[in-house]
Amino acid sequence: MVVIGGDAAGMSAASQARRLKGPDALEIVAFERGHFASYSACGIPYWVSGDVERRDDLIARTPQEHRARNIDLRMRTEVTRIDVAGRRVRALDRESGETYWTGYDKLVIATGARPVRPALPGMDAAGVHGVQTLDDGQALLDSMGAPENAPGRHAVVVGAGYIGVEMAEAMLKRGFEVTVLNRGEQPMSTLDPDMGRLVHEAMDGLGIVTVDGAAVTGIVAGPDGRVREVTTEARAYPADVVVLGIGVEPETALAREAGLPVGAHGGLLTDPAMRVRGHEDIWAGGDCVEVLDLVAGRSRHIALGTHANKHGQVIGSNVAGGYGTFPGVVGTAVSKVCDLEIGRTGLREKDARAVGLRYVTATVESTGRAGYYPGAEPMTVKMIAEYRTGRLLGVQIVGREGAAKRVDVAAVALTAGMTVEQMTALDLGYAPPFSPVWDPVLVAARRTVAAVRGAGAA
Amino acid sequence: MVVIGGDAAGMSAASQARRLKGPDALEIVAFERGHFASYSACGIPYWVSGDVERRDDLIARTPQEHRARNIDLRMRTEVTRIDVAGRRVRALDRESGETYWTGYDKLVIATGARPVRPALPGMDAAGVHGVQTLDDGQALLDSMGAPENAPGRHAVVVGAGYIGVEMAEAMLKRGFEVTVLNRGEQPMSTLDPDMGRLVHEAMDGLGIVTVDGAAVTGIVAGPDGRVREVTTEARAYPADVVVLGIGVEPETALAREAGLPVGAHGGLLTDPAMRVRGHEDIWAGGDCVEVLDLVAGRSRHIALGTHANKHGQVIGSNVAGGYGTFPGVVGTAVSKVCDLEIGRTGLREKDARAVGLRYVTATVESTGRAGYYPGAEPMTVKMIAEYRTGRLLGVQIVGREGAAKRVDVAAVALTAGMTVEQMTALDLGYAPPFSPVWDPVLVAARRTVAAVRGAGAA
Repeated sequence: MVVIGGDAAGMSAASQARRLKGPDALEIVAFERGHFASYSACGIPYWVSGDVERRDDLIARTPQEHRARNIDLRMRTEVTRIDVAGRRVRALDRESGETYWTGYDKLVIATGARPVRPALPGMDAAGVHGVQTLDDGQALLDSMGAPENAPGRHAVVVGAGYIGVEMAEAMLKRGFEVTVLNRGEQPMSTLDPDMGRLVHEAMDGLGIVTVDGAAVTGIVAGPDGRVREVTTEARAYPADVVVLGIGVEPETALAREAGLPVGAHGGLLTDPAMRVRGHEDIWAGGDCVEVLDLVAGRSRHIALGTHANKHGQVIGSNVAGGYGTFPGVVGTAVSKVCDLEIGRTGLREKDARAVGLRYVTATVESTGRAGYYPGAEPMTVKMIAEYRTGRLLGVQIVGREGAAKRVDVAAVALTAGMTVEQMTALDLGYAPPFSPVWDPVLVAARRTVAAVRGAGAA
Repeated sequence: MVVIGGDAAGMSAASQARRLKGPDALEIVAFERGHFASYSACGIPYWVSGDVERRDDLIARTPQEHRARNIDLRMRTEVTRIDVAGRRVRALDRESGETYWTGYDKLVIATGARPVRPALPGMDAAGVHGVQTLDDGQALLDSMGAPENAPGRHAVVVGAGYIGVEMAEAMLKRGFEVTVLNRGEQPMSTLDPDMGRLVHEAMDGLGIVTVDGAAVTGIVAGPDGRVREVTTEARAYPADVVVLGIGVEPETALAREAGLPVGAHGGLLTDPAMRVRGHEDIWAGGDCVEVLDLVAGRSRHIALGTHANKHGQVIGSNVAGGYGTFPGVVGTAVSKVCDLEIGRTGLREKDARAVGLRYVTATVESTGRAGYYPGAEPMTVKMIAEYRTGRLLGVQIVGREGAAKRVDVAAVALTAGMTVEQMTALDLGYAPPFSPVWDPVLVAARRTVAAVRGAGAA
């Protein structure tokens, strides 16, 4: 078993295969081109913010721990070619410069994603940082300087998706004046614009300057080579540090060169067993694959550690001769900016239109606890259901404590293909510290039922 | 439309019917024998604790507000007879002593539940209080005296179910030394004993003395007529205040006398439209009915405001000529004792045995946030699945922040009839502040899959 990529998907696959096969029955070699394996990239914003103290806290399992379980993990070693016909991969040891071929019976491709880095003037200025890897995070922390020097200094975050808003919080916590430059109409383009607007307003309230419709045109460095400002078509923003949070795309160059099938979003195409289509002994998982969107009925690309871990489990089971499948996703994501919570699952309005579904929506205001209970905070729940059938299509929630994870209820309902009318009868936990007597999700379902039935009825 | 009982189920039914019918098309009369209508009995512990400041905060809608919507709500008026053949009810005005008959076309029975009050010596001593109604709560608060006098005084809570543990927290917050006398093997008999034990341990840690296997034999009053101690077979416990939190049973004497069908648990039997079985024009809902347990396939009695509100909605819709059904419950309940959270849904082991199901279980330890994220608190998740088929049967969670409401995911999965293997692929929200990369429910599902498959496999 040869694994390309030593992070969540690859090492989960290796570990699961080792667990099922026992310590000796399978030779496992894993190649990782970077300095770290099995770490939580999703945790980087919280390390940069100071919430997580030590980089090593983000490392789930060290190379030594993998090796102790008889997984031959080769760090700083990049696979530079896959020879499908010859069932072998070519590896480059980045320390020694040595290259060599290794044969495989079973191959697992877990090459992950790479950050989108627009080719803009000045991108190589000192103080411009991605936050994709632990190395990136360390470089940013080194570049930020001491916290006591932060007040009055400016951090510009480019992008207002999950990474962008999480990094905005991180830089705010580090004492910077934070500006988020967002190309889109509203922050969080994974939400509908009406819900994104709530995020924008909340970010204003937190003291984060968010500029929508701001396409970055360049980065201007000072004579010392360090970033001084970020320019858009409209104006220039002073910047002592720039964080790029523009998203990622599947890292599949190697797989493409090997002739493996890649989809419309650039990710490898697999079957539900995570086997690369048309290739009996090659699996792929994590940020480099496309997954089936169970609601839209189409394939899409989502880079998320929780999916990567599931893929790895499935691959490891199958490689070891067991059985596992990854049926697909419903598009659940949760995030926060300081005490603002954001959750979403399923289709946005524009996703529904894109796949030819007609729909109705309803948006309600509720609270995370009984209204009379201390700390009851408002939340806004938007629900989308198919026209006529009333089948749930999506839910978006923006609010405070208890808002984000409430989308999990909708995620299960989407998976089960429930209608919003069925959802109104769901037996969700109720007690005043945890929910109003009608949970916000139930309130939204009731209102959406009324929308499905047409105006007037309730 | 005549409604007997002016709390959650009855007034929800009246309000929904009024909403659908418009202000004038239906005459609605509602009788409430107490001083309050439409209030949150579930909120009483938090009012007693001081978390909720004012009694009126617990009142969702005043009698005046109901009357303003053309609902003729008659307070302090008890229905003393239902004449099914004559389609009329006899009312007793408790202020004036006057009785009169009122005819109905549609009758709604929402008589609620009454607290179980064991016939023990000394129960009428001053300082012995139930917490079923707002009047009860006020009497308890009056009886407790000023907070500055609390230290060193003893509160004995009889019963360790939801009300018992919530009242233990309330009395602790008010500064009392709190002892909980629990007849059962462990607190929270709605949990399996292994999970109840965790609650016991946590209550110990909070400084609440919990005595299991303690059947109260009597209450001893001092010469002033005020409670002085509570006795069990084993010993006597000093008590300045006694709170009875022993649970409730359906209040159906009136309905029984009228010949309406009552089930094995003492609750009225209805069809899914909440129509009393065999009676075209009589509906019943809330704490006085039995509901279908969708997992066990049997009827049971659950007194919970969230169900009562749903029943009322369904009844109001149907009385108004619309359509609504209440398909049943899966037995979800959440509670907390200080920062300890408790959630449960579906069947306990003994419930599964009682309905002849064979099952497997798995119990896992996890955290509510990524392990490295500040404030990640432990939680224990127990999952029960049917032997062979792997169908989810129940989930119990005991932990800290984020533990209780996680049962909602299982509640939806139970409703959808999912297997634990299907659950392992659920797309639940992941980000470090909200969940480990494998949500605790997914970890439990994976472990339960292994249990279903038999030892060894994972």
